[in-house]
Amino acid sequence: MVPSDVGYAKRGGVINVNLAWWDFYICKIRCQEMGRTMTAATEQRDWSTAQRDGSTAQRDGSTAQHDWSAGLARRTHSLGGGEITAILALAGATDVITFSGGFPDPATFPTGVLAEIAARLISEDAGVALQYSATEGLAGVRDYVSGRLASLEGRAPCAGQLMVTSGGIDCMELLAKSFVDPGDVVAVEAPTYLGAIMAFRGYEADVRGVPVDGDGMRVDVLTELLADGLRPKILYTIPDFQNPTGLSMTADRRRDLVGLARRYGFLILEDVAYRELGFGAAPPPSLWSLAPDVVLQAGTFSKIFFPGVRLGWAAGPEQIISRLVVAKQNSDQCSGALGQRMLEEYGRGGHLDRQIVRSRALYARRAGLTSDALAAHMPDGATWTTPDGGFYIWLTAPGGVDTVALSAAARARKVAYVPGRPFYPAGNGATQIRLAYSRVADDLIDEGVRRIGEVLRTALEQK
Amino acid sequence: MVPSDVGYAKRGGVINVNLAWWDFYICKIRCQEMGRTMTAATEQRDWSTAQRDGSTAQRDGSTAQHDWSAGLARRTHSLGGGEITAILALAGATDVITFSGGFPDPATFPTGVLAEIAARLISEDAGVALQYSATEGLAGVRDYVSGRLASLEGRAPCAGQLMVTSGGIDCMELLAKSFVDPGDVVAVEAPTYLGAIMAFRGYEADVRGVPVDGDGMRVDVLTELLADGLRPKILYTIPDFQNPTGLSMTADRRRDLVGLARRYGFLILEDVAYRELGFGAAPPPSLWSLAPDVVLQAGTFSKIFFPGVRLGWAAGPEQIISRLVVAKQNSDQCSGALGQRMLEEYGRGGHLDRQIVRSRALYARRAGLTSDALAAHMPDGATWTTPDGGFYIWLTAPGGVDTVALSAAARARKVAYVPGRPFYPAGNGATQIRLAYSRVADDLIDEGVRRIGEVLRTALEQK
Repeated sequence: MVPSDVGYAKRGGVINVNLAWWDFYICKIRCQEMGRTMTAATEQRDWSTAQRDGSTAQRDGSTAQHDWSAGLARRTHSLGGGEITAILALAGATDVITFSGGFPDPATFPTGVLAEIAARLISEDAGVALQYSATEGLAGVRDYVSGRLASLEGRAPCAGQLMVTSGGIDCMELLAKSFVDPGDVVAVEAPTYLGAIMAFRGYEADVRGVPVDGDGMRVDVLTELLADGLRPKILYTIPDFQNPTGLSMTADRRRDLVGLARRYGFLILEDVAYRELGFGAAPPPSLWSLAPDVVLQAGTFSKIFFPGVRLGWAAGPEQIISRLVVAKQNSDQCSGALGQRMLEEYGRGGHLDRQIVRSRALYARRAGLTSDALAAHMPDGATWTTPDGGFYIWLTAPGGVDTVALSAAARARKVAYVPGRPFYPAGNGATQIRLAYSRVADDLIDEGVRRIGEVLRTALEQK
Repeated sequence: MVPSDVGYAKRGGVINVNLAWWDFYICKIRCQEMGRTMTAATEQRDWSTAQRDGSTAQRDGSTAQHDWSAGLARRTHSLGGGEITAILALAGATDVITFSGGFPDPATFPTGVLAEIAARLISEDAGVALQYSATEGLAGVRDYVSGRLASLEGRAPCAGQLMVTSGGIDCMELLAKSFVDPGDVVAVEAPTYLGAIMAFRGYEADVRGVPVDGDGMRVDVLTELLADGLRPKILYTIPDFQNPTGLSMTADRRRDLVGLARRYGFLILEDVAYRELGFGAAPPPSLWSLAPDVVLQAGTFSKIFFPGVRLGWAAGPEQIISRLVVAKQNSDQCSGALGQRMLEEYGRGGHLDRQIVRSRALYARRAGLTSDALAAHMPDGATWTTPDGGFYIWLTAPGGVDTVALSAAARARKVAYVPGRPFYPAGNGATQIRLAYSRVADDLIDEGVRRIGEVLRTALEQK
């Protein structure tokens, strides 16, 4: 029933998304460097002028262009401007080897069993599965997620301490909207997930970076910053197989960190997006399991189930969860009930656990192939992380290479990555690259990494 | 696979949601009347104190209670406080006749055909249907929605003028976040959809009401307000079968309204949630079709398809849509691809059009039954609207009755409604009630209305 001109190439849409994100952040960086000129007044007739004088230039009913950008809220100013639209609308090329988006591989997605579950829910349970859900999520689904946390993390949230969200980013947005006033300090790992930086900046937070090393966030540095007077309202961390470095926080640092949160009264937002996708031993205890009084855990089912229904969870202090539920009433009101029930049925049947075992093996294999390719193709002086789980390897190029500037050369060579700078709150990462190996076919990894190596070598030779 | 203690009564979860909304707004009204005491400081050790002094009271690692409410963002203050949580968490009784929530009736939901579509998409199209979507929506789905608008409204949005949203409320939230600074004026019909008031208040808008009559918004009054200096940045309206009155705006007023928007440079946000659920002749042209230069149309598939996947659309000026796409990157990133593809396949197969025909007949029948019951059971002096479409009848009680205060008595008589006050930005509606007949079984309508009549009579006798 899809007309042929719409083009549902199996991977086309996905690559499109990747490129959109990639271009978006390239653009964002450029916008920042241009000193946010996009929000400056233009010669075009604009919203504020018309509002001031109630003038009649368009009284003839013509469709003359208004400049709506003049009315943008102040909180949008750090998010870049109108040029992003044009770039987002670009159709993606389909012959690019893309290491850019943090996408799960469709090979891990459920098929037959889930098809049966979906058909059964629609036929036999439409009154629940197709209806609005309670904003905090369906009771049975919360019961399932709660039991899952109990078995994975040794602690079950009480009633009121758990809600269903529309993916992990939904939790960040709801928290920022509910608790961040302009100028509030939010501390993050540097580098960290760029979506989180955007979510907090979207509410005019003062986002500050705390450095990381091979053992995760430098909690000792955070301790010094706090002693010197830094007062974050929220500290955001991805303790397991971090985005973008692939590295994890040690058990000792986790205990130290929750101690700091209790002492200084800040909330830890713990993002566990990759926690279940480790390649070896189980990760250290989650921060939430250590300190449910000061930790809000944001989980997502996008990486372990699939992203095509927007589903995640938030577990934390009841006072926090209750406010996120109020905020969610005004965003999407509830996460889709059909996806919730599919997850529950699939999960209670044991299928999710089996899927995760297969996913771990796939991503471990790709991490290994990517590491091998890096060893074969990177120029001298390049370094990279060796993840024990998750989707990412973090590459540091030698010799002052600018990975933003090289993006165009990479595109010309039909390979895509995300440059390092947007992963920092400010000023770092110019020589760095995030490689997401999660959705690059095994037989394309070596070639893709070889092309990036070429781009870097060419840049080094031209210096 | 659902344990018996979870309790998936076919209608239980839904009634729970209804009661949550109902209680939420009752509570909200009370909170406002209490002068927002909930955000005042408490004797409990709180966030701000700990943040100021970095004190060590909890250095022992205990799970002492923090008072997180002290850190709430200022923008949350108009949304009520922590008591809402407790009420939202209440399990709903299952023996209440509820006219409160604006829910579609599950009898209208698709079953067999959709079950086949879902199973096929999961089995054969997982790489698209289960993966992340582009933030603005899948290209094929936008093509489908665009074609649908062309056939229904005589105008197709160009590329960049249309995006897929997670229901209608998502569009309001994204618009408010992107364009509303604290103190900005947003004009709304008085009364209007309470979720829209909340969405704009959530960004500290100054929400102003414009009265309505049997021909919809009093555009003449708006004209005077504008002449007197009112400068709304946004005007929100539901021109067709409005929530909560069930009434529609005439064609003449629509033309006058878009003229005002062009003259004074404000954006019209047109909510078309009920537009396709008319009982008789087709409604007048949509505002967006009249003036796509100054109108953002927010549509939802929740009332005509089903709410269990969160799906809607936004059509409007490219400058506006592009900013909503940026904002959506930081909320749920995208609407679920599975729901998008289900809608597209179901719609392109002609099933949605047939479903809508059946839905109109069902809701027309219920509107008639409710009108008949009101005529039979209301005390003298009560008046109500006669809708030509949609889900709602708006009832005005006689003699200064306070419908908020009567909510408890209604609950005791096992009937629920939403009192009128939260539908106004300020100060009106004390004697009014919204009756949603959309999901009350035919054979319960008369009894439910009879109970409300009893509650009102009792109150009048006690005066």
